[in-house]
Amino acid sequence: MREVYLVGAAQSPFGAFPEESYRSLFATALEGALDSVDGELDRTSIDEAYVGTLGVGGRQLGLAGPSVTEYAGLDGVSCTRVENACAASGTALRQATLAIRAGAADVALAGGVEVMTDTSGDRTRYWLGVSGETEWERMAGTTFAGVYAQMADAHMAEHGTTREDLSRVAVKNHANGAHNPDAHLGFECSLEDAMAATTVADPLNLYDCCPTSDGASVALLAGREAAERLTDDPIRVTGSGQASDRVGLFQRSTLTGIPAAREAAEGAYAEAGVGPDDVDFAEVHDCFSIAELMAYEDLGFCERGESGAYVRRGATEPDGERPVNLSGGLKSKGHPIGATGTGQVVEVFKQLRGEAGDRGVTGLECGLTHNVGGSGGAVAVHVYEGGWA
Amino acid sequence: MREVYLVGAAQSPFGAFPEESYRSLFATALEGALDSVDGELDRTSIDEAYVGTLGVGGRQLGLAGPSVTEYAGLDGVSCTRVENACAASGTALRQATLAIRAGAADVALAGGVEVMTDTSGDRTRYWLGVSGETEWERMAGTTFAGVYAQMADAHMAEHGTTREDLSRVAVKNHANGAHNPDAHLGFECSLEDAMAATTVADPLNLYDCCPTSDGASVALLAGREAAERLTDDPIRVTGSGQASDRVGLFQRSTLTGIPAAREAAEGAYAEAGVGPDDVDFAEVHDCFSIAELMAYEDLGFCERGESGAYVRRGATEPDGERPVNLSGGLKSKGHPIGATGTGQVVEVFKQLRGEAGDRGVTGLECGLTHNVGGSGGAVAVHVYEGGWA
Repeated sequence: MREVYLVGAAQSPFGAFPEESYRSLFATALEGALDSVDGELDRTSIDEAYVGTLGVGGRQLGLAGPSVTEYAGLDGVSCTRVENACAASGTALRQATLAIRAGAADVALAGGVEVMTDTSGDRTRYWLGVSGETEWERMAGTTFAGVYAQMADAHMAEHGTTREDLSRVAVKNHANGAHNPDAHLGFECSLEDAMAATTVADPLNLYDCCPTSDGASVALLAGREAAERLTDDPIRVTGSGQASDRVGLFQRSTLTGIPAAREAAEGAYAEAGVGPDDVDFAEVHDCFSIAELMAYEDLGFCERGESGAYVRRGATEPDGERPVNLSGGLKSKGHPIGATGTGQVVEVFKQLRGEAGDRGVTGLECGLTHNVGGSGGAVAVHVYEGGWA
Repeated sequence: MREVYLVGAAQSPFGAFPEESYRSLFATALEGALDSVDGELDRTSIDEAYVGTLGVGGRQLGLAGPSVTEYAGLDGVSCTRVENACAASGTALRQATLAIRAGAADVALAGGVEVMTDTSGDRTRYWLGVSGETEWERMAGTTFAGVYAQMADAHMAEHGTTREDLSRVAVKNHANGAHNPDAHLGFECSLEDAMAATTVADPLNLYDCCPTSDGASVALLAGREAAERLTDDPIRVTGSGQASDRVGLFQRSTLTGIPAAREAAEGAYAEAGVGPDDVDFAEVHDCFSIAELMAYEDLGFCERGESGAYVRRGATEPDGERPVNLSGGLKSKGHPIGATGTGQVVEVFKQLRGEAGDRGVTGLECGLTHNVGGSGGAVAVHVYEGGWA
């Protein structure tokens, strides 16, 4: 199989940017990604681009990919928009990986963008709801928080997971995000505040839910030959896994985990020839606190039902055995839907290269990203390792 | 490069089907595609699925891929939705091709679906308009017919193309579509009627414009080993090319051709090791009559500016030197946006296998599909050849 290297990655800040557009945010991310490459890479050397976006707000629903790449100076670059709801750019990353493996590209771009903060109230619920199951969930009034609340409720009932376990995810991710200048909600929160926040969808409260954000992110991949010219500090994408499941939660085989995440992880681990124990750190899809706990289990970081205990003993803290969401995660860094998947890649890139500033953790060699669409209708998992093959 | 074979393809009828949904139409196309495979292929043997759709009507904008594949019994199959406006499923075909070449799939599905006929008036214009350039075309009031009318006007002024040349495209495609039981507008029209129809956007009249349709289509691709089990009559996908350009017509280098089509064709020809002269027949993207004329030139079937003469001398008639749109094309068969690209593949599959009924042409060995997104912001071109490599 042709080797794939991550040679550059960057994001725009995530947050609320009324003065920016979906196109200017993407242009910022691309500029940063090109700057992050060690060698000389110009726009015309990009052979293929994949842009993930849900298209919240309905600005440009057709040619949503080319409409952002052309603005960023890539109008001669073949572009495809991919969409798997919140896993859009994790999916884009997989397509860019396959394009290089297939020999269709020597350098490929995977990125994503979303502008959400100018869409409010009912329209926000509509745009988020369209990623859920339409007929039996959204049109029956179920919100996304409501879907994940059912999962949290079931997890608490089946496994004894507690209110405090959920809040510990939020506290950790906010503490991490406070060191990330690109985070949307870059402030710390106390366990007391996190536990006492206003209910959104019982048992989930405000601190269990990520914000809606504006932002963009770009990752640049290359085959071996191009990577040798472009990077001094190689990072390989050694595993790519993707899986789908029923879009509606009510049609899944379990409420307390995400089967597609397990399957995508199995695929990524098998390709990389590693297991969960080999993963030093991960960026996981914590759209809600319960989602991060389920991710620990789905990715094999701990046994099924043990994620509460796992977070309690600090395993995923920056100084724990396997740091998770050093970037702040969706919870603190923010969740501009299409930008989230390759946003996770940006953190892996920075951590593995020792460029994560005061949130950097030393000694990391193997990273993982876990990007979930909807409540688990599609999941993309990727594994990254430092060094040449 | 790993060989890619087209082992099955089918479409639902294209037309107006108020009793069907986007999901039931896709299920019909999948069922037909599985039935069209010579060997035994079940749903669980499909490794990866790519579904193209614009999502007209806003039914399911997130997880739009998995929401149709799950309904068709593919909920365990990894699915990605791709979108490049009207080139959505041509783009899906390219991704499925790359997935097989990359070794990520032994059997991959490319398909598309759209339901449009329940969206009327202003909403139709909105949903079509979102595939055009938003800020300077759509919001200024330009419709899609208006954009192509500008191209037609320029082509007539620059190259002397006539009203009759445009109408000949419609007459030919309706004559072909009259033999296609799956066509939306499966009736013949006379040159007189085609020339005298009501103006839509001068110089384009009603017969220069394809209809909006409901429909779905599915193509099944396989690597060599799987293909040996699955087909008795092999068809290779020997070339895949895709290119992007500015979304807005006003920002392109020409009004009288589609530069991305030329570039995508160059890519597909180079991979296949063939040139335009080797192409025996083609399905091209005749969303408007002028688009088919420009396609002749962009694909190299005739010299630039010569497409009027080319259609006049009957070169693209079923008994001409290079039949084009034997299916009826978008004009007669219909244009359910997301389903169009792989709908073209269905005709190639049937013609090369001699299964096209009374519209079948004998002696065809090399086919081409040409699928255009928007007015040329993205184009996918594929080349197909009969026989094992």
